[in-house]
Amino acid sequence: MSGLTLYHHKGACSLAPLIALEESGLDYSVEIINLATDRPGYLKVNPAGKVPALVLDGELLTENLAILYRIASLAPAAGLLPSGLEETSRTLSLMAWFGSTVHILRRQIRMPLRFTPDADAQAKLVEAGRPKMWEALLEMEARLGEREWFGGRAFGVADGYALVFYGWGLNDGFPMEELEKLTTWKDRMLSRPAVLHAIRNDAGVLHDKLEAAA
Amino acid sequence: MSGLTLYHHKGACSLAPLIALEESGLDYSVEIINLATDRPGYLKVNPAGKVPALVLDGELLTENLAILYRIASLAPAAGLLPSGLEETSRTLSLMAWFGSTVHILRRQIRMPLRFTPDADAQAKLVEAGRPKMWEALLEMEARLGEREWFGGRAFGVADGYALVFYGWGLNDGFPMEELEKLTTWKDRMLSRPAVLHAIRNDAGVLHDKLEAAA
Repeated sequence: MSGLTLYHHKGACSLAPLIALEESGLDYSVEIINLATDRPGYLKVNPAGKVPALVLDGELLTENLAILYRIASLAPAAGLLPSGLEETSRTLSLMAWFGSTVHILRRQIRMPLRFTPDADAQAKLVEAGRPKMWEALLEMEARLGEREWFGGRAFGVADGYALVFYGWGLNDGFPMEELEKLTTWKDRMLSRPAVLHAIRNDAGVLHDKLEAAA
Repeated sequence: MSGLTLYHHKGACSLAPLIALEESGLDYSVEIINLATDRPGYLKVNPAGKVPALVLDGELLTENLAILYRIASLAPAAGLLPSGLEETSRTLSLMAWFGSTVHILRRQIRMPLRFTPDADAQAKLVEAGRPKMWEALLEMEARLGEREWFGGRAFGVADGYALVFYGWGLNDGFPMEELEKLTTWKDRMLSRPAVLHAIRNDAGVLHDKLEAAA
């Protein structure tokens, strides 16, 4: 599996495939880029200028859900996607909700410029978005419920994706410790050597926040 | 396959799985609901109150991408997802982009209340969102390129999803006819009996707009 390269910006949602790759046992390399300063060069890799991007022997793959599906499928022995159509569909549903709802709310409260250049309107977006972001984190707590892992009966790619939002929640000043099931799950995550290795490789804001919360 | 029910709101993105079900050859039923008036009862089916929702013998599945993956996987002979990991990943990537970027831009210009209750900020969201929505439609044109279908080498679930955005583009007053490749593809879509049946079953705003553009 040489020729598998992940482009990662520290503290970004590309931590999810970084965890997946480390858990997969696949050979891979990471290119740490700074989207603020490396953008011109990075556009030659990914014209959309976003992370994550996975390059597989020259083929570009974008969008977290698709990258996570691909990594899990390349390493079936690691069991990063549940077996069976029903469970796989539920994991895809969860990850689609992460990408189209939870991540969008986080953008609204941290990058309102992505929605409008008007400063007053940006302030309104942040104000309305924060309680909704907390609702989304409460929903994550409810969706985890009594299960050990988001990924199904075992750890899976959805868990690495979920950890991004836990780290962002800490970073954004939400009282994450009130989410007892999520916090126990976060500790379970940080007891996995591959997860720890990935967040240390990240060495960005999520690393600092998650290490401090450990 | 009795016990397969799609919940659809006319003109909503649940047209995508309506098309997929019709193309799949599976037995299914459609419950047409009005999210403005039927919400209390519908919350018993889907606590999130959104469409699409697919109920499979009592099991609830949400999020368009996951529903489309499930329908395609239940009917492999219909070939609604491409075979092979590379092509499947690319289709998932495209559908994840539809859900997390294109659909969000459309929400910004048509349902800004979902982002903020402030009327002035809503006006700013619409103003900034419209050129970005057009850029997204241009990117859809570029992504289709010289191919006949979004779904890969043949028609697939991604095509039904893409048709939603074409219909919304017409509805929202964008000059869709300037997108020549997309418009030729839209005509190709409307020449498929199952697609026509699905949009007539929709009988909502997308039906009217797409029929008028045929």
